[in-house]
Amino acid sequence: MTTPDLYPSRVGGEAELLSRKDPVLHGAAGAEGGPLSRAELASFERAGFLVLENCFSADEVAALREEASQLRERLAGSGKPEVITESGSGEMRSVFAIHRSSAPFARLARHPHLLDAARQILGSAVYVHQSRINYKPAFRGREFYWHSDFETWHVEDGMRRMRAVSVSVSLLENNVHNGPLLLIPGSHRYFASCPGLTPERHYERSLQQQEYGVPAPAILEDLVRRGGLEPVGPPGSVVLFDCNTMHGSNGNITPWPRSNLFLVYNSVENPLGPPFSGQSPRPAHIASRDFTPLDGDG
Amino acid sequence: MTTPDLYPSRVGGEAELLSRKDPVLHGAAGAEGGPLSRAELASFERAGFLVLENCFSADEVAALREEASQLRERLAGSGKPEVITESGSGEMRSVFAIHRSSAPFARLARHPHLLDAARQILGSAVYVHQSRINYKPAFRGREFYWHSDFETWHVEDGMRRMRAVSVSVSLLENNVHNGPLLLIPGSHRYFASCPGLTPERHYERSLQQQEYGVPAPAILEDLVRRGGLEPVGPPGSVVLFDCNTMHGSNGNITPWPRSNLFLVYNSVENPLGPPFSGQSPRPAHIASRDFTPLDGDG
Repeated sequence: MTTPDLYPSRVGGEAELLSRKDPVLHGAAGAEGGPLSRAELASFERAGFLVLENCFSADEVAALREEASQLRERLAGSGKPEVITESGSGEMRSVFAIHRSSAPFARLARHPHLLDAARQILGSAVYVHQSRINYKPAFRGREFYWHSDFETWHVEDGMRRMRAVSVSVSLLENNVHNGPLLLIPGSHRYFASCPGLTPERHYERSLQQQEYGVPAPAILEDLVRRGGLEPVGPPGSVVLFDCNTMHGSNGNITPWPRSNLFLVYNSVENPLGPPFSGQSPRPAHIASRDFTPLDGDG
Repeated sequence: MTTPDLYPSRVGGEAELLSRKDPVLHGAAGAEGGPLSRAELASFERAGFLVLENCFSADEVAALREEASQLRERLAGSGKPEVITESGSGEMRSVFAIHRSSAPFARLARHPHLLDAARQILGSAVYVHQSRINYKPAFRGREFYWHSDFETWHVEDGMRRMRAVSVSVSLLENNVHNGPLLLIPGSHRYFASCPGLTPERHYERSLQQQEYGVPAPAILEDLVRRGGLEPVGPPGSVVLFDCNTMHGSNGNITPWPRSNLFLVYNSVENPLGPPFSGQSPRPAHIASRDFTPLDGDG
């Protein structure tokens, strides 16, 4: 039995903007029984993201930043597959599975407010599909081109439905000039089907620079014309965003490094199947296949 | 007889922040006899740049933009040395000597307000040292790394003193997200001497991506800590900036292309000599050696 592909992409066709087949808020729990207000849920549903104010104190953000810095030192030169370096400079670009290699980040993944907000949006128990830190150094920080996470998770990881949510925590200031995370409001309501096919072991290159699963310019123009662009803000900013919200960031020539931490919660009712690309699944540190529900007791 | 090098750079030493040996406002004419008010001159002297409001009407800007677009089409694929392409994509990055190949841009170089402002700042008659358009396409626009124009003009063109001024006209909107021209206020009061030596025929690569004459990170940090960053604004914005004001711009992943036109006026009392690199002068379309004063009668 083949699972029908509701979101065909990289199947050799043309770039196309398809409609979303899934709700943004899932289950009956939506409006009740969680930390997000009706207004916040409505805003998340409309824009595809929500900024959570005052989630962490300055001390808590400093502690997360310090842990990110120590993790970076522990892993530098380790050659571990969790570490993605820049293709040119060899500088650290991303570290994956941070909730597996760091006790503070494991605790963060079980932070009651974040976890309950994810459950409220997804209408079920959740597990951590992916976690990572993106470091963007000063002066030489490279761009992250536009993408919907879901497009990759669907094609390369076999995530069937749009029922996952990302939490981004800015560890260092994202200002308008240092390559802040940019989200396209409203873009989550469409699915930007991408042209081309996925090469084998694509992830080994794509995490440095994406060449497949890249939305077409005309589609990006269309999405930005409808929704504009929204940058992520000061240290400690927490943004919940739908798995299909189009986002990206420019390079950084300023003297201000910036780094963002990401936790991705997926519904336990949306476990990964075989990748729709027909290829082997990506490694567990990029896409977990341990669907055990997270409990919030830490 | 050797001309003493007041601004040694790329002479095999360390990166260093030297003091400026030249005034910012030249000659006695400074305060009088020109379109700029005392307050504007003081602001230029302090910050190293000045935004001129309402210099052009919307129609005039549209005409300049149209001419830039036609020039681009005329020159596309021409293989002319005035055209600099991106190293990866082959897209047009810059066109030089635009006041030589376009009648409207030749007229612009003699625009009374711009010309008189340049004369007022430089305290003498002036000629056009260089003119260009930088095109930064949507989605794939590449960065222009931090640089002082004077550093290059001194080392590679033999411009002895800091007595030149650039005029930048934004033809398409520079917003905070599409890789706007960023200036470091106050940076013109120092000279960022660069490490290394200049390779032969450096300009053939440097206009795509600069590798020599690149200020050191610690120096840029220092300058930005003192002065911050100032982005250039909406279409038609005109910015006068000192030849030694540090500037640069990020790449552009947004759907909004941006392009800026530059005219560089140099004092006729500051003609080019032999390059301080000891190498051959760069071609005339990059650094004119026709020091005939511009008259303002068009």
